[in-house]
Amino acid sequence: MDERQFVAYLKDKFPFHSGLGIGDDASVVRLGKYFQLISTDILIEDIHFRLQDLSLAELAEKSLAVNISDIAAMGGQAQYFYIGLGFPDGLRPEALRAFFSGLSRAAKKWRVDLAGGDYSRSKKMFIAVTIVGQSKKPVLRSGARPGDWIAITGPTGGSALGLKLLLAGEQNSPFIRLHKRPKPQCEKGLLLARYAHAMIDLSDGLLLDLSRLLQASGVGAEIDYEKLPVPPHFRRLCRQKNYAEKELVLAGGEDYQLLFAISPLQESRLRQTGMIYHVIGKTTKQRRLRVLENGQPLKISHFGFDHFLDQSDKKKK
Amino acid sequence: MDERQFVAYLKDKFPFHSGLGIGDDASVVRLGKYFQLISTDILIEDIHFRLQDLSLAELAEKSLAVNISDIAAMGGQAQYFYIGLGFPDGLRPEALRAFFSGLSRAAKKWRVDLAGGDYSRSKKMFIAVTIVGQSKKPVLRSGARPGDWIAITGPTGGSALGLKLLLAGEQNSPFIRLHKRPKPQCEKGLLLARYAHAMIDLSDGLLLDLSRLLQASGVGAEIDYEKLPVPPHFRRLCRQKNYAEKELVLAGGEDYQLLFAISPLQESRLRQTGMIYHVIGKTTKQRRLRVLENGQPLKISHFGFDHFLDQSDKKKK
Repeated sequence: MDERQFVAYLKDKFPFHSGLGIGDDASVVRLGKYFQLISTDILIEDIHFRLQDLSLAELAEKSLAVNISDIAAMGGQAQYFYIGLGFPDGLRPEALRAFFSGLSRAAKKWRVDLAGGDYSRSKKMFIAVTIVGQSKKPVLRSGARPGDWIAITGPTGGSALGLKLLLAGEQNSPFIRLHKRPKPQCEKGLLLARYAHAMIDLSDGLLLDLSRLLQASGVGAEIDYEKLPVPPHFRRLCRQKNYAEKELVLAGGEDYQLLFAISPLQESRLRQTGMIYHVIGKTTKQRRLRVLENGQPLKISHFGFDHFLDQSDKKKK
Repeated sequence: MDERQFVAYLKDKFPFHSGLGIGDDASVVRLGKYFQLISTDILIEDIHFRLQDLSLAELAEKSLAVNISDIAAMGGQAQYFYIGLGFPDGLRPEALRAFFSGLSRAAKKWRVDLAGGDYSRSKKMFIAVTIVGQSKKPVLRSGARPGDWIAITGPTGGSALGLKLLLAGEQNSPFIRLHKRPKPQCEKGLLLARYAHAMIDLSDGLLLDLSRLLQASGVGAEIDYEKLPVPPHFRRLCRQKNYAEKELVLAGGEDYQLLFAISPLQESRLRQTGMIYHVIGKTTKQRRLRVLENGQPLKISHFGFDHFLDQSDKKKK
């Protein structure tokens, strides 16, 4: 059972009667004039992070950031959150204070309140955050239509590059900072709520998250690799270290940029707001995902994207 | 830093601007005509449960039950929930289906929907549930007044006895079933919302949870041990096995009965509803907790209740 089958299994087994449940960045429930958005994310020691790589304050900040990003991806405003914390016995009491001090600073920065939680000692540390937000008009993954532009709010691959450097024993790099301290795109998310057809945050890699949006919308896409924002110092470092640039840009995770689909008319309006974003391709009726470089298709199956292609191939037959 | 100091530290560090946050069974936020209740609870392998002791379906049911109990303890109606699941690599895919089948059955039984979640492999299994409910008039821990009756909805100690039997290698006992499949007191919670001044669910032992309610309300209490409902077969088994009956009844956890404070007038009205409950004592102005047996105080410091007494002693001086 791969992830998509698992989500389909759960959606089938657990119908949600109060709104939109499983399958988007957050659930959506109408409450009077607005919609309540709720999302939950877990971070586990030695799966999602290693304690030696970042401070407990950074870890607290990151656990909040990735949840706020889910609300931003719906075009919503995060309001408050709940934390379930498993904390290793071996850590000293000061460590707990360091964690909550970092959490408090992050909460103030993003203007969200801690509303409750549960705490226990545990062998490995884990952090389960549930965040509550609201929106007047949530942007779902499923709203893209053929002929939309596809755009992203900023470069991808930087966090994955930072992780590679960290695992190689480096300590100081702007990319390592990107990895440790991701920035949810709150303001852009709110602005995009007025223009975008569909939106998702980039947590698991550009192609995987894009394929989720396309799948939900029932469309395909053509992306031009040349249009992707790849900063020169990123490109230089990849060449220097002999890292696969395209793999990092297309399949590296934890960028927390927003990816959205937008009609050409709305895009021309969005341009006038001055918000920085990058159009990287367009949606197609044909339900497959292609990445072109100088007009030639890249073999994206290299990045683990067979299943999406297989699925659309089956439908064509 | 003990639990009470930790909660005080968090309440101070994280003010909640939308309603009542940390410190009760659930947070309370007004939404139009009603109040939204949200609570989160974590269950961790080898801390809260051992995989050999209960099936994955039972574990799923229990993880939902303890959260629903938090909503019942506020006099609310549970509506939907989110799950963060860390699942050991070693378990087979069928195990995941068994877990979610149990969860689905439990969700149907208690009429709550799964609205979202996050999933990851992890070394030890853990389940973080966040539940959303509502109430027209939430019952807080803090509403008890001197002269209230203190009552509970059913016997305590049965789950702790079941756990002792389980750890001693036994498999079949009604008490083991109590431990594995706790029943949240949903209907009683809803009914009590109309009568009780203050309420809490018994998750960590009668005296500890009672002391939390008293602490939040700024009152003390006198409990009569003879008034506690102790079933004859429970008493008999304790004698037979040489288990400390009083310790199980007063300090055993995971009963998920409701404990409430109620004025004498309201109690006389509640009696007419036919709901089963047991008056076990009364609240006092004097902020200390005493348990009497035939009029003689029991040494409850044996059960780890020094700190509450110390605190009230300090205030007296």
